[in-house]
Amino acid sequence: MTSLALITAAADRLSGHARVTPLLNAPLLDAAFGRRILVKAENLQLTGSFKFRGAWSAISALPPETRAKGVLAFSSGNHAQGVALAARMHGIAAVVVMPADAPTVKIANTRAYGAEVVLYDRSTQDRDAIGERLTAQRNLTLIRPYDDAQVIAGQGTIGLEIAAQAAALGIHDAAVIACCGGGGLSAGIALALEPHIGFRLHTAEPAGFDDMARSLATGTPQTNPQPTGSICDAILTPAPGKLTFPILHHLAKGGLVVTDDQALHAMALAFTHLRIVLEPGGAVALAAALFSPDLPDTVIVTASGGNVDPATHRLALDRFA
Amino acid sequence: MTSLALITAAADRLSGHARVTPLLNAPLLDAAFGRRILVKAENLQLTGSFKFRGAWSAISALPPETRAKGVLAFSSGNHAQGVALAARMHGIAAVVVMPADAPTVKIANTRAYGAEVVLYDRSTQDRDAIGERLTAQRNLTLIRPYDDAQVIAGQGTIGLEIAAQAAALGIHDAAVIACCGGGGLSAGIALALEPHIGFRLHTAEPAGFDDMARSLATGTPQTNPQPTGSICDAILTPAPGKLTFPILHHLAKGGLVVTDDQALHAMALAFTHLRIVLEPGGAVALAAALFSPDLPDTVIVTASGGNVDPATHRLALDRFA
Repeated sequence: MTSLALITAAADRLSGHARVTPLLNAPLLDAAFGRRILVKAENLQLTGSFKFRGAWSAISALPPETRAKGVLAFSSGNHAQGVALAARMHGIAAVVVMPADAPTVKIANTRAYGAEVVLYDRSTQDRDAIGERLTAQRNLTLIRPYDDAQVIAGQGTIGLEIAAQAAALGIHDAAVIACCGGGGLSAGIALALEPHIGFRLHTAEPAGFDDMARSLATGTPQTNPQPTGSICDAILTPAPGKLTFPILHHLAKGGLVVTDDQALHAMALAFTHLRIVLEPGGAVALAAALFSPDLPDTVIVTASGGNVDPATHRLALDRFA
Repeated sequence: MTSLALITAAADRLSGHARVTPLLNAPLLDAAFGRRILVKAENLQLTGSFKFRGAWSAISALPPETRAKGVLAFSSGNHAQGVALAARMHGIAAVVVMPADAPTVKIANTRAYGAEVVLYDRSTQDRDAIGERLTAQRNLTLIRPYDDAQVIAGQGTIGLEIAAQAAALGIHDAAVIACCGGGGLSAGIALALEPHIGFRLHTAEPAGFDDMARSLATGTPQTNPQPTGSICDAILTPAPGKLTFPILHHLAKGGLVVTDDQALHAMALAFTHLRIVLEPGGAVALAAALFSPDLPDTVIVTASGGNVDPATHRLALDRFA
């Protein structure tokens, strides 16, 4: 069970390995949208997303003899790269099971970070069966993308940094918005900020994939009707996590929802005003801060990832820059 | 005369107002180019370039009664925006004299930061005469873009941060490369790093505008044959500064030169590997680190600005991403 103590311990293990990312702002963006917006730039984290924190936290928390045997992850994206680099920096093996039709660059990057990539055919092969066989054969430890107490603790270190960086700016009251897929980032930040009563967490999701918003509103886990259909590929999960939902049900203020166009618009504004590169799924919290009507004067958002292909980035600039 | 003491004093005045920018790196970029490259991301500074530091340093160093009367700057770009915001944050007036054919967005941004913009016709009007008339009429203080001891001191605070951030990574020997126009950034960093004997500064300029490289090589100030003709608009100055050249002649290791295509290539790699947005003139130091043959294993570069129009950014991605 993730707790503030587990997050503080994760922060100690991450120190000197993960990057303390800046809390950015832009006076002209604030003026244009009528509120003060601070952006926790996790696109600048190692491997280009916050996922490195959770991966490092989980791997560094393993008993040494277990860790030495290596780890395994399922992912076609940011979690894959985070686990691959964190494993390499620990000097251990990582196996990443990826769909054969994943973007070539993501497969290449995961390999470049030193992982062994095992490809499978989504239409004919069972991913979980492949993973179970490999973990059993090689005594690997599975690193889950969000339903893992140490992964949530790792993402929660972002909340500790937000609290300290906001305090240095004299900010003690704000809505905090996190991009939300399975809820690991949101749950970790919510736990880290629980003692700071002026900060309350909202999740942000793409329209059509607002399982967390509906789950928080109804109090019971809801699922999404479709598995795909948004450009926010990094955060399209079928349902809230088993560990993350109870945390967020207890601590989150609620869930915000944005359209794909609003995510693209936020990417373009991040380019112009903050000079950072965001992927669509990493821009939904900023989009929610810009386009949601009922928010306080000060909003802190996670810019959770920047692994975007040039064509999608160009689309955002062509339409909104 | 700028000295380490003046830089340290500027750092005290900038504290809590300018942003401490991160020193970024990307393992896959290092692997691809065979050296360790650290990027001081001043594109993330307020107003999108390091120029805010020098503007803040100069304005904050003025006697209060002088400062209260306001400041004036000539600039069509990053210095204009730095002075405009630094003046507004001091609660004083800023007048910025800009060519009427400057990019609309830069004029609009300078106004949005609160400056009074005075436009002039490059072909029929004398910029200096306009500036002299305004400073005399209104008792404004001219803030020069680089030939000002306090401006150089402000840019030098980047060198102090580089030394501290590199030391935290265990780095004590590296080539340090700064994007160079008039030389304010380069001179400030060179002075700040003078006590750190493992760090030696190189300037980086676009081909055809390598006045500083040739001046350092010959020991006497050289001029550029053409005033325009590179996409690196932010750093096209006719000759080294009168204050900056003697500093760099004494302290710089030498000058590196890159092509416009190499600057665009560096912009694309910054997009892919670092998830930051650079303008061409802000990418020449990174380009020099990537494409110069004779550099040590560890190189620290300034990414000095990110105010790029979408069309130029797209050009970089289309060709090199």
